[in-house]
Amino acid sequence: MSKLVIVGTCAFDAIETPFGKTDKILGGAATYIGLSAAQFKNVDPAIVSIVGEDFPEAYIDLLTQRNINVEGLEIVKGGKTFFWSGKYHNDMNTRDTLATELNTLEHFAPKVPEDYRDAAIVMLGNLQPSVQLSVIQQMTEKPKLVILDTMNFWMDIALDELKQTLKHIDVITINDEEARQLSGEYSLVTAARKIHEMGPAYVVIKKGEHGALIFHDDQIFFAPALPLEEVFDPTGAGDTFAGGFAGFLAQSGDISFENMKKALIYGSCLASFAVEKFGTERLESLTTSEIKERLKQFQQLTQFEIELS
Amino acid sequence: MSKLVIVGTCAFDAIETPFGKTDKILGGAATYIGLSAAQFKNVDPAIVSIVGEDFPEAYIDLLTQRNINVEGLEIVKGGKTFFWSGKYHNDMNTRDTLATELNTLEHFAPKVPEDYRDAAIVMLGNLQPSVQLSVIQQMTEKPKLVILDTMNFWMDIALDELKQTLKHIDVITINDEEARQLSGEYSLVTAARKIHEMGPAYVVIKKGEHGALIFHDDQIFFAPALPLEEVFDPTGAGDTFAGGFAGFLAQSGDISFENMKKALIYGSCLASFAVEKFGTERLESLTTSEIKERLKQFQQLTQFEIELS
Repeated sequence: MSKLVIVGTCAFDAIETPFGKTDKILGGAATYIGLSAAQFKNVDPAIVSIVGEDFPEAYIDLLTQRNINVEGLEIVKGGKTFFWSGKYHNDMNTRDTLATELNTLEHFAPKVPEDYRDAAIVMLGNLQPSVQLSVIQQMTEKPKLVILDTMNFWMDIALDELKQTLKHIDVITINDEEARQLSGEYSLVTAARKIHEMGPAYVVIKKGEHGALIFHDDQIFFAPALPLEEVFDPTGAGDTFAGGFAGFLAQSGDISFENMKKALIYGSCLASFAVEKFGTERLESLTTSEIKERLKQFQQLTQFEIELS
Repeated sequence: MSKLVIVGTCAFDAIETPFGKTDKILGGAATYIGLSAAQFKNVDPAIVSIVGEDFPEAYIDLLTQRNINVEGLEIVKGGKTFFWSGKYHNDMNTRDTLATELNTLEHFAPKVPEDYRDAAIVMLGNLQPSVQLSVIQQMTEKPKLVILDTMNFWMDIALDELKQTLKHIDVITINDEEARQLSGEYSLVTAARKIHEMGPAYVVIKKGEHGALIFHDDQIFFAPALPLEEVFDPTGAGDTFAGGFAGFLAQSGDISFENMKKALIYGSCLASFAVEKFGTERLESLTTSEIKERLKQFQQLTQFEIELS
């Protein structure tokens, strides 16, 4: 079993899309990453997060039933769980945030369970950069791979802190606009190189419906998003992608660039499911044979044979 | 030799980008398509177009030196050549048209040379749809494949005419926003199906820096754009893409979907060169070994191995 430490939010989300709206449902970066990574056999994922007393037992059961360790999930007595509410526009690519209530998240000091401090892979979901860094510092053995997800918010208010944290990171996942903001470069090739110089040897740039790129030295690999008839709810797609990426690498134990190519495809594959229903619903019902079937679609979508003698 | 009829504009372009500006230089859809298709061996391309007396002999020589037949290039005595001028914004994805002078193009009635009326492949560059249709009607043998490129302008002012023409088309190439406009659907999968119902068995949706998709029944294939450090001038990229697609199909004589996948990659490959310099400059200097080298980059960018037992 390959240990995978996942740090991030467990949350309540209330989502409105052109297809309907939800009350408070299960959400959060760590939740999506965990449910995605848990699809891989021989992976032992542990979520490190914080919630309030209002976080339903049923949500915790949902995680543990999928063999996700929740020892590191702190439940604050009398506290309230982080809440996010958003409304997607008709294009499903842009959204308005209607509410953000940090609640217990405001004083989140993640504690990695003893048993997981030697984990091979650490996946840091989007959080304040200093909080992400504190997790790396708790590891008793240097992880094979530390993956960090972040967003423009931290570039706006805590850029130096983010840059400090990036020095300890192997893989950063970031969207295209954020990559441009962080690097000050419009070309993603140039942006990736500048971000590489900040620390991460691997730069993953997520382009939503336009797929994802991974850069390493002079190598680039691209995983498209699966063209879908209907995107029902994009919430958590990026985290599901990251969870698939991390989960596959944990399963295979191989962090070569060739293997990261496959990991990117797995990430894209799992994200293509996540958007089919509200919240985590689709990930909860996902089967191995459905994943295999969809991977075939990715092959048909991208593989070609040109002989270059 | 496989005959390829190319209909479209030969033009003067004046281009301004963040990297500089040009005086009137060689441009036009037929020009880019022709220079791109002429990269393929055993293809006999003929340009059917119209220019004025001001069109330099040197530009015609440039085409004929690449074995592009120009019998169908009408030179109007005393007439002036179609002129377009545009300025690209910093993102290189949007542009303002500064000037459009139709000149001789206003009364363009394309005449396919006798020798090319039995061509296997017809590539109709962006033009008024009825003018595109008139070309198909001149063919004495039903072509194996008719490819049509069009744009939102014709959807705005000549939608019925466009729909009439689409009934006679095998492959349409169109950008994502135009596909959405033509179909009234946001999802590109649904849009492609609706456009398919209008006539074309194959729908190619161009997404610029985000690559291109081809749809055929339930099959989809995706060719990424090569991530580039610097896009110098995007003018003609779509036409170069179409020329590579048509040229490869003409060369191989195989219009199966599997082969169209390769054609899409060739199109994307040639387009990646076109944007490296102003106008047609890069296409003019292009060598076979450079193309081969770049195709390898496309393979590295997209090919992966996942065993699905």
